[in-house]
Amino acid sequence: MTNEWKSIVDCEAFANLKRLADAPFDLSAENALTPERLHKFFCKGGEFELLYGCQRITTEVLDGLQSLADECDLVKQFWMMRSGHVMNRLQNYPSEERQVLHTACRDIFSQNPACEAATNQAKAELGKLKQFLHDLDQGVIVNELGQSYNTLIHVGIGGSDLGPRSIYEAMLPYRKNNRTVYFISNVDPDDSAAVLERVDLSRTLVLVVSKSGSTLETLSNETLVRTALKNAGLNPALHCLSVTGESSPMDNPKRYLRSFYIYDYIGGRFSSTSMVGVVMLGFALGYKQVMEFLKGAASIDQITTEKDIRSNLPLLYALLGVWNHTFLGIGTVAILPYSQALHRFPAHLQQCDMESNGKSIQRSSDPVQVKSGPIIWGEPGTNGQHAFYQLLHQGTEEVAVEFIGFRESQRGHDLEIKGTTSQQKLLANLLAQSMALAVGKKDKNPNKQFSGNKANSILMADKLSPKSMGALLALYEAKIVFQGFCWNVNSFDQEGVQLGKVLAGEILIAMDGKKDEETLVESLLALAKVK
Amino acid sequence: MTNEWKSIVDCEAFANLKRLADAPFDLSAENALTPERLHKFFCKGGEFELLYGCQRITTEVLDGLQSLADECDLVKQFWMMRSGHVMNRLQNYPSEERQVLHTACRDIFSQNPACEAATNQAKAELGKLKQFLHDLDQGVIVNELGQSYNTLIHVGIGGSDLGPRSIYEAMLPYRKNNRTVYFISNVDPDDSAAVLERVDLSRTLVLVVSKSGSTLETLSNETLVRTALKNAGLNPALHCLSVTGESSPMDNPKRYLRSFYIYDYIGGRFSSTSMVGVVMLGFALGYKQVMEFLKGAASIDQITTEKDIRSNLPLLYALLGVWNHTFLGIGTVAILPYSQALHRFPAHLQQCDMESNGKSIQRSSDPVQVKSGPIIWGEPGTNGQHAFYQLLHQGTEEVAVEFIGFRESQRGHDLEIKGTTSQQKLLANLLAQSMALAVGKKDKNPNKQFSGNKANSILMADKLSPKSMGALLALYEAKIVFQGFCWNVNSFDQEGVQLGKVLAGEILIAMDGKKDEETLVESLLALAKVK
Repeated sequence: MTNEWKSIVDCEAFANLKRLADAPFDLSAENALTPERLHKFFCKGGEFELLYGCQRITTEVLDGLQSLADECDLVKQFWMMRSGHVMNRLQNYPSEERQVLHTACRDIFSQNPACEAATNQAKAELGKLKQFLHDLDQGVIVNELGQSYNTLIHVGIGGSDLGPRSIYEAMLPYRKNNRTVYFISNVDPDDSAAVLERVDLSRTLVLVVSKSGSTLETLSNETLVRTALKNAGLNPALHCLSVTGESSPMDNPKRYLRSFYIYDYIGGRFSSTSMVGVVMLGFALGYKQVMEFLKGAASIDQITTEKDIRSNLPLLYALLGVWNHTFLGIGTVAILPYSQALHRFPAHLQQCDMESNGKSIQRSSDPVQVKSGPIIWGEPGTNGQHAFYQLLHQGTEEVAVEFIGFRESQRGHDLEIKGTTSQQKLLANLLAQSMALAVGKKDKNPNKQFSGNKANSILMADKLSPKSMGALLALYEAKIVFQGFCWNVNSFDQEGVQLGKVLAGEILIAMDGKKDEETLVESLLALAKVK
Repeated sequence: MTNEWKSIVDCEAFANLKRLADAPFDLSAENALTPERLHKFFCKGGEFELLYGCQRITTEVLDGLQSLADECDLVKQFWMMRSGHVMNRLQNYPSEERQVLHTACRDIFSQNPACEAATNQAKAELGKLKQFLHDLDQGVIVNELGQSYNTLIHVGIGGSDLGPRSIYEAMLPYRKNNRTVYFISNVDPDDSAAVLERVDLSRTLVLVVSKSGSTLETLSNETLVRTALKNAGLNPALHCLSVTGESSPMDNPKRYLRSFYIYDYIGGRFSSTSMVGVVMLGFALGYKQVMEFLKGAASIDQITTEKDIRSNLPLLYALLGVWNHTFLGIGTVAILPYSQALHRFPAHLQQCDMESNGKSIQRSSDPVQVKSGPIIWGEPGTNGQHAFYQLLHQGTEEVAVEFIGFRESQRGHDLEIKGTTSQQKLLANLLAQSMALAVGKKDKNPNKQFSGNKANSILMADKLSPKSMGALLALYEAKIVFQGFCWNVNSFDQEGVQLGKVLAGEILIAMDGKKDEETLVESLLALAKVK
């Protein structure tokens, strides 16, 4: 059987880029970074602009990346994904064999959605959500005492937690009627206990999110919360909602006030714009803002059909990452938002990226011949500057940096101190770090020397709003997918989580048995003194 | 001038370890991981036990690391640090030339403290704190209306924020009278705005933390908070406290109700057991728990004098890290606590480690000849399992993993679900992941194949309490310091943060000027559309 998709190493562009990577552009050379260069390496896409003059690239490199994109049919593959082709699959071995249609969740504004069936399903769920939120607002849905609900506990893990949580945290100033959301995800019993001691359960909705309806951590946490509801004399069926697959064990009107559906063509880590994310967001922000959020995401998806990488922001962003990782050999990417509201967004991207592209085999089932996905980490600036930036500037590990910034603050509560506002200081620091990493500084004192020449880019938008949040999310989702296509891995499965699950099951069984230390598991339990 | 300290590459042990690293122990080989191995590679220290059978080591490697520790005089250097030798210095170039005495803050239980002068200063500040907390409890210190304070806003950044914040988050169940602490750190104006909209300022103390009394971000945030206090008709001098250097601009009784001192021999990232951490912790937990916290830290410091690495947990932990990083070439370390309470602890360690050891020159001022500090990142398990563990198990980037676990939950609110408690499930997952990473799994389907042989260790204690939190903190502090000594870098300065500061200043000035795009800074501002 011939390979369906080209391996990156078989592309003509690969050899060419390899050659260019032998002597990449040196940002720290005298007059390397010029106003002209900054203007040249600039791309606009939807709400965002990308300043990529501080990447170690030249026009030749960009041309090479364009060829790579063309040879790998990246734009075509993305379109195939959007239009419902089965992209979650491997050749030659059994695999999930699923469509990948998170983009359909926001393809609701178009006359001709890429995959009409999936978008119709998304519209149907959004219709249910709109009605539900209306009923909440109008006092049709109330608690045992006829009071409105003002709190929601979102129970999920991994893809059902990190995306929604990071977006909620980013959207706090846009909340409606001061509604509050708490999240429980960890099987650590202290996670649920900490939330339960804070909320007034009588006015709390509990949204349980699990596609399969059988995620062990989530079911454990649901049981803990249901028990607390019962202990408080409340009726769980009046308080609990679910987001789950149609006809899963959690699609049960006797146990849940409402169930919203997610389909198997939406992977957990790409599910923030599906019901997994928007039921909670709708509760917190209202339906109108959910539409803005989806509109922002759709605006990025639309750009992905553009073949010219210089006009296709998500593709360009992906290819710059491929240049850094595959050709320059930089193993980790730091995502550094200059926005405290995005403090959990790097954790979401860590999941979305590393679970998607942390793979060792190609879609042909052959081993990868170049490294697949990098390690993703990050914290907000300016805090990071006072933490780990020391290593970025003067350490021996190389890191590719993706800065994110916004021209305005969300709340607009600011003061001029020593002649500038905090927002100005924030942005000055963002721009300064980008320059400092690129240009470096020579000094006679070796301890004050900065080698510079550190690849970085700046993604800018006006303000972090529901719409730009949706765009930012979709931009990173598309980046990750484009990179997976380029490395020819299946970005949509996660077989790597299975072994741990199996072993945990065995250990739980061993916990019940005698401990004679004859087996590995028993001696591990004995040494760790775990009962 | 001869070099004061040996470079790692000049040690006899270095060549020997290099040779051993050519064919390191293969954890995934048949019967490689045995009960005997687990028992053999086990170390106890204070509150913690370390299971390190899943490191890629042999007895020979351990012996080699012992020789390395001996040749580099690591134990002696640590003692010199504790006893007040000037360890924050470089040879041949101007440097900070300071003592490094964070350990003195907890050396208060000993009859013969390693550095009596510093410990006496610590005791004096603790005495002031004890009196202050007593006055708060007894209603001697009250607000304008005679009410007690129930909230504290901790304003700091970097070392004055991440450590205290992560410890507070970990100690929530031990709070006294439900006192609540909020943190403001980012110069992003939304950070302070988000906190200020949540608190009742009339009953809030504001603790401003800056050693120099001149940290720009912190002063900006202090001004924002003081303005809010004034706007609420309150007197800032009744609400504001400071932790700062004696006679810094913030040591001013007209502006601060109380000032607690930190001395220049305590670096920001090592300051959590100084007034930087314990004023806030004392407010939240009470003085008695602060003593427990310090006792835990002291218990680890005491172990550091032990020359046998098999009995010196912090040194052993450090050397296992050196083995992975310097000899096996693993560039990043994931710190994965199976405790939701430690959710911000990896961010603190990221700072403490990367700012300390992310250096390019040795203490001799010569360039480092091996890589210095690794990249540190991490999130709590089990959440991480549903996020980035895919890459740990099946990706192409190598990661050294440090698991942390506790036998009991903090709150003890748990339920048996499907035959086991959540705490049991949590621990089963922790042990299972360690085994899975080490042993891997063969499978005909390459997508279900796990290469295994991934270095990891498990650090265990009974329960996350103030005492074990102190021990955990001190263990990591000591690990970082030992590693810095081993790599022969100055772990106590941070010249790498200076360039960004200087450039940010220049950009702030340019913001005020005309934008004719002639200079780099002006075109950067114009392209980023930043005013």
